[in-house]
Amino acid sequence: MNADELARRCAETMWADDAASRELGMQLRDVAPGRATVAMTVRGDMTNGHGTAHGGFVFALADSAFAFACNSYNERSVAQACDIVFVTPVVDGDRLVAAAAERHRFGRNGIYDVQVTCEGRVVAEFRGRSRTVGGAIVDPD
Amino acid sequence: MNADELARRCAETMWADDAASRELGMQLRDVAPGRATVAMTVRGDMTNGHGTAHGGFVFALADSAFAFACNSYNERSVAQACDIVFVTPVVDGDRLVAAAAERHRFGRNGIYDVQVTCEGRVVAEFRGRSRTVGGAIVDPD
Amino acid sequence: MNADELARRCAETMWADDAASRELGMQLRDVAPGRATVAMTVRGDMTNGHGTAHGGFVFALADSAFAFACNSYNERSVAQACDIVFVTPVVDGDRLVAAAAERHRFGRNGIYDVQVTCEGRVVAEFRGRSRTVGGAIVDPD
Amino acid sequence: MNADELARRCAETMWADDAASRELGMQLRDVAPGRATVAMTVRGDMTNGHGTAHGGFVFALADSAFAFACNSYNERSVAQACDIVFVTPVVDGDRLVAAAAERHRFGRNGIYDVQVTCEGRVVAEFRGRSRTVGGAIVDPD
Repeated sequence: MNADELARRCAETMWADDAASRELGMQLRDVAPGRATVAMTVRGDMTNGHGTAHGGFVFALADSAFAFACNSYNERSVAQACDIVFVTPVVDGDRLVAAAAERHRFGRNGIYDVQVTCEGRVVAEFRGRSRTVGGAIVDPD
Repeated sequence: MNADELARRCAETMWADDAASRELGMQLRDVAPGRATVAMTVRGDMTNGHGTAHGGFVFALADSAFAFACNSYNERSVAQACDIVFVTPVVDGDRLVAAAAERHRFGRNGIYDVQVTCEGRVVAEFRGRSRTVGGAIVDPD
Repeated sequence: MNADELARRCAETMWADDAASRELGMQLRDVAPGRATVAMTVRGDMTNGHGTAHGGFVFALADSAFAFACNSYNERSVAQACDIVFVTPVVDGDRLVAAAAERHRFGRNGIYDVQVTCEGRVVAEFRGRSRTVGGAIVDPD
Repeated sequence: MNADELARRCAETMWADDAASRELGMQLRDVAPGRATVAMTVRGDMTNGHGTAHGGFVFALADSAFAFACNSYNERSVAQACDIVFVTPVVDGDRLVAAAAERHRFGRNGIYDVQVTCEGRVVAEFRGRSRTVGGAIVDPD
């Protein structure tokens, strides 16, 4: 199995278990070693009375893309810490895409940048720090 | 109306509009100038296959407490940027409490710390930065 | 040796080795378990042409206070990650005080908040995350 | 004057005023719209007794690269907030290079990523958030 196939197999296994991302209506679009793209449409129940999305849902989308990217090497990893800058508010019906890319891995640590966009406009910039916790996601053989 | 009453009135008005926090099953427990406490129970649809909560929902709880705290002065405020450190994973059925407290306000900016706990154990440490955007939440008269 | 004495002994040992903090003219004012206060006066060589201090020196002061606080338990610790919000610019001659206080420790990790002030005015808010790396600072016996 | 020339002129003007960066022995290597590279060699007076650099000096180098990058459009800008992850310790004599690149600009805000390396090894990952404060750095005519 090459690195791309391994990344996809890890993501499929995680996705099957990830009720939360599925319930939020996310779609895993693409995954590769150190990278992942996840999409989600803002729903009415993610917004306040003015139709603006609660920041928690924008964060959740970025966090899912981060999780698929940092687990793409078949080393089980968790989020240690994340930060997010909110650039543009989004509303009910907006289609969001979160693209996660690895910035650096060192020892058991990883740094991943996630950009959330809506039709090309930047919605949020997220940076996540991961840590491997031991164990594999799939049987590599 | 004194500062405490104003904080409560702002929170009630925001809460009535905040479908997202209500749909996530949050309860606004307490609000005062620069402070707010919000509770939420982790549900099955917030977890992955192992019953561990998706970080996005822990973030969303902290972010709601932050929003009520930074809007307690009746100056409409939004989140500019937030960071979160994940301390302990939580599972389906865990009762979470997020307590937000103002650290500093300067010009149009505010810094708020939110601690998320589960029966006294720290679950996450969140820091949010707000910015006033003009306008009031309630009519102060 | 009680916890306060141990914290002081750790700080004295670190201070003797810390040429950088001494060269920057810092004074260690106070140390206790999980807490430390360090002072520094802004010098001309820390400023740009307008007399405003370079952010790196405000950061350095906060980082030193953080280091003394997170090493106060006689478990050798290093900074993993830090963030700083700049609140008020400072100028040549300003007397800065950085007060570090532990927010939470868990496993090998610690979170410390440092407030930098100048005559009571907040200059910067810093949050540092530490990790123990094994080994003691002083012989506890 | 084209955008590259303007970026260089801004950097030269800032550099002439920036006693702090000069006193730390920094060299401005390169500047372009939204980008800057600054180098510095770790000196004995930047280290503790074990020869390891104080984090404040690594931060200061990254912060200078960030400042040149975010001021490259001739709109006077300041640092609002910065975060840094320390990857590898550095010692007396190490040659550090900080490369700043713009991630996103929106309204008066900018997000810049700075990677500090030593002979190709990553030393630190820094992210800075800037805000324009009005006024120009050079006369553009």
